[in-house]
Amino acid sequence: MQQLGQNARAAATEMSRAESSVKNQALVAIANAIDNAAETLKLENQKDLQAGKDNGLDAAMLDRLELNDERISGMSEGLRQIAALQDPVGEITDMAYRPSGIQIGKMRVPLGVIGIIYESRPNVTADAAGLCLKSGNATILRGGSEAINSNKAVAKCIQQGLTETGLPADAVQVVETTDRAAVGELITSSETVDVIIPRGGKSLIERISKEATVPVIKHLDGICHVYIDAHADLRKASDIAFNSKTHRYGVCNAMETLLVHESIAAACLPELAKRYSEKGVELRGCELTAKIIDCEKVTEEDWDTEYLAAILSIKVVSDIDQAMVHINKHGSHHTDTIVSEDYTLARRFLREVDSSSVMVNASTRFADGFEYGLGAEIGISTDKLHARGPVGLEGLTSLKYIVLGDGQIRE
Amino acid sequence: MQQLGQNARAAATEMSRAESSVKNQALVAIANAIDNAAETLKLENQKDLQAGKDNGLDAAMLDRLELNDERISGMSEGLRQIAALQDPVGEITDMAYRPSGIQIGKMRVPLGVIGIIYESRPNVTADAAGLCLKSGNATILRGGSEAINSNKAVAKCIQQGLTETGLPADAVQVVETTDRAAVGELITSSETVDVIIPRGGKSLIERISKEATVPVIKHLDGICHVYIDAHADLRKASDIAFNSKTHRYGVCNAMETLLVHESIAAACLPELAKRYSEKGVELRGCELTAKIIDCEKVTEEDWDTEYLAAILSIKVVSDIDQAMVHINKHGSHHTDTIVSEDYTLARRFLREVDSSSVMVNASTRFADGFEYGLGAEIGISTDKLHARGPVGLEGLTSLKYIVLGDGQIRE
Repeated sequence: MQQLGQNARAAATEMSRAESSVKNQALVAIANAIDNAAETLKLENQKDLQAGKDNGLDAAMLDRLELNDERISGMSEGLRQIAALQDPVGEITDMAYRPSGIQIGKMRVPLGVIGIIYESRPNVTADAAGLCLKSGNATILRGGSEAINSNKAVAKCIQQGLTETGLPADAVQVVETTDRAAVGELITSSETVDVIIPRGGKSLIERISKEATVPVIKHLDGICHVYIDAHADLRKASDIAFNSKTHRYGVCNAMETLLVHESIAAACLPELAKRYSEKGVELRGCELTAKIIDCEKVTEEDWDTEYLAAILSIKVVSDIDQAMVHINKHGSHHTDTIVSEDYTLARRFLREVDSSSVMVNASTRFADGFEYGLGAEIGISTDKLHARGPVGLEGLTSLKYIVLGDGQIRE
Repeated sequence: MQQLGQNARAAATEMSRAESSVKNQALVAIANAIDNAAETLKLENQKDLQAGKDNGLDAAMLDRLELNDERISGMSEGLRQIAALQDPVGEITDMAYRPSGIQIGKMRVPLGVIGIIYESRPNVTADAAGLCLKSGNATILRGGSEAINSNKAVAKCIQQGLTETGLPADAVQVVETTDRAAVGELITSSETVDVIIPRGGKSLIERISKEATVPVIKHLDGICHVYIDAHADLRKASDIAFNSKTHRYGVCNAMETLLVHESIAAACLPELAKRYSEKGVELRGCELTAKIIDCEKVTEEDWDTEYLAAILSIKVVSDIDQAMVHINKHGSHHTDTIVSEDYTLARRFLREVDSSSVMVNASTRFADGFEYGLGAEIGISTDKLHARGPVGLEGLTSLKYIVLGDGQIRE
């Protein structure tokens, strides 16, 4: 691991100076290598799938592990899309003269060496490598042991693309040992690693956050809310609440709790309950909710649960303050929406809800790098420091100060 | 500590909503309270100074510990200056429509609860509290046990100012126990503390970085370089190299190592050596340097040493590449300057030197929140994540996404 780190540090220096055109060529070369290696990738993936079955992995795990034609072309297509994005590195902003005569501004620079720790899905290998490469960073990828053959095969394509374009092969390294101690070493290598991005289940991320001494950009969970205000447009409220829950269940930006103002609850809940029940969504409501619609009884635990399933908890609240207290207390600071036509309340909600995405009259499902125009995302951060919300290329960079003078000294 | 954290969390919510005018009134009220309490502050400070003497603190420690009239008015003046700065909270940038019809941008918000851990200097209590207050954060201050009476007295003034203006008293809390375990608890309270900023000696900062599970914004050390290029203007080179070393010795942005291109060394070093020797600066040079000027022999250790004293190491290099390799290897990624009239080399230096401040033809001493126009600084970060270089009000805030829609849902 130490050698890996040192290789990465050396490669990072070269990567930080690489021209956009060369990085883009490398991305396309990797994409081509992946397309050409499709059969090999599937063969290697079969080994992992077989081992997974033998080891009793569940169906969901096996599904995430699988590399089929669609996912392979998804990887190469993703890399070509990243090649088409604007390079954030070197951008200079806020240049201004100071009274001393120096001119000062900020230049966007790569973070350096990024360690990615992830589970099962081998396509993360290509996605994460592509984003880090484009943003001028070196990457150390540590996938799950269950995907080791697939990851090695993808890594080979990446190495090929890098070498073909003259970029250092160490710019993307895949940890080939499945020894768990390697993770512990990676997340404490402050000298050679600048940031760790864990991608996977909550337990993985919690463990890494707890043990890492290298800074971590993490996404812990998504307990998102829709608050239907007294002054909501009923049509918008119904559509947003329905879409936020049912568009996809297993995603972090799906709504888990619906909050409804007491004065509008009777007008909007029955129609919504009908739509949910047609879709097979289980409803768990507070006492006031239960007076209006058929539902299970909600427990205190429900408010703190990320279902990632066709279950919704519902609470009737007396006003926006109660709604915001509930969101800030039980939410995961991910994404929360108010549905309201009231200008002042919308402004309050935007300012006072402490989440990475705060919305007015839009589905929580929009919290996504593609929808936000970032082009691609390496994850959605629920941290406050550095990167908050969807993390794209810019989140993989930092800003340094640059100062231009004509011989100025401090008096 | 847990109670302190919970109080801070509750206060942070209130603080994030506080209007600029109220925060400014509080800052001025605290400044007035400090001015009015000058005699009490000096009396309480005397207790600390006496205890310090009894405990054998050295003269430098005792000097940092002292609160005299000048330092007391410095505290209140600093708070009034912070009141006059623009409030960064609530600023909205990059609002743009997306193809889906949603409008997306970023809003600047406070970080939440900031823990400051510092040593000796009781005036940090007022400075840090002021910056955190203005940026809408709640603060937990943990000063050194040697300054406990002074810190409590300053805290009393802060409480008075907060209460007078109707802000929560818990917005600034001073840890009153001198129990060292309190620090350990503070830096691992991820639930209630959002960021830790340690201020003090290297050993304190290293210990905290190592043990903290809460994110840390830190300034470790300042091994700054001036590189005099072959194409330097000799007058500028001499002035910048002299000023960077001798303007103040004990500061992080002072130059510790001078790098000189071999083709210009004979032309510039003798005159510089004369200026340094008149000022009493000890010179430690490499072999090539020793052929040109009188100097001590430099050791490998010197290149990695932050002298904070009238000592300078000098290395003659063959070109800009050797200079940059030396800086990126031995520097502390703080502040480095090239002196050159060569356009292309200046551009390369700006891009390729991996430091929080990279300069052309200006003294390293300019790396400072006031000189950069931040108004005030809570420290200079040598980290890459979140805040790099001088950290002012903006560094104490984060950005959240805001989304404005008209009922949009994901298809």
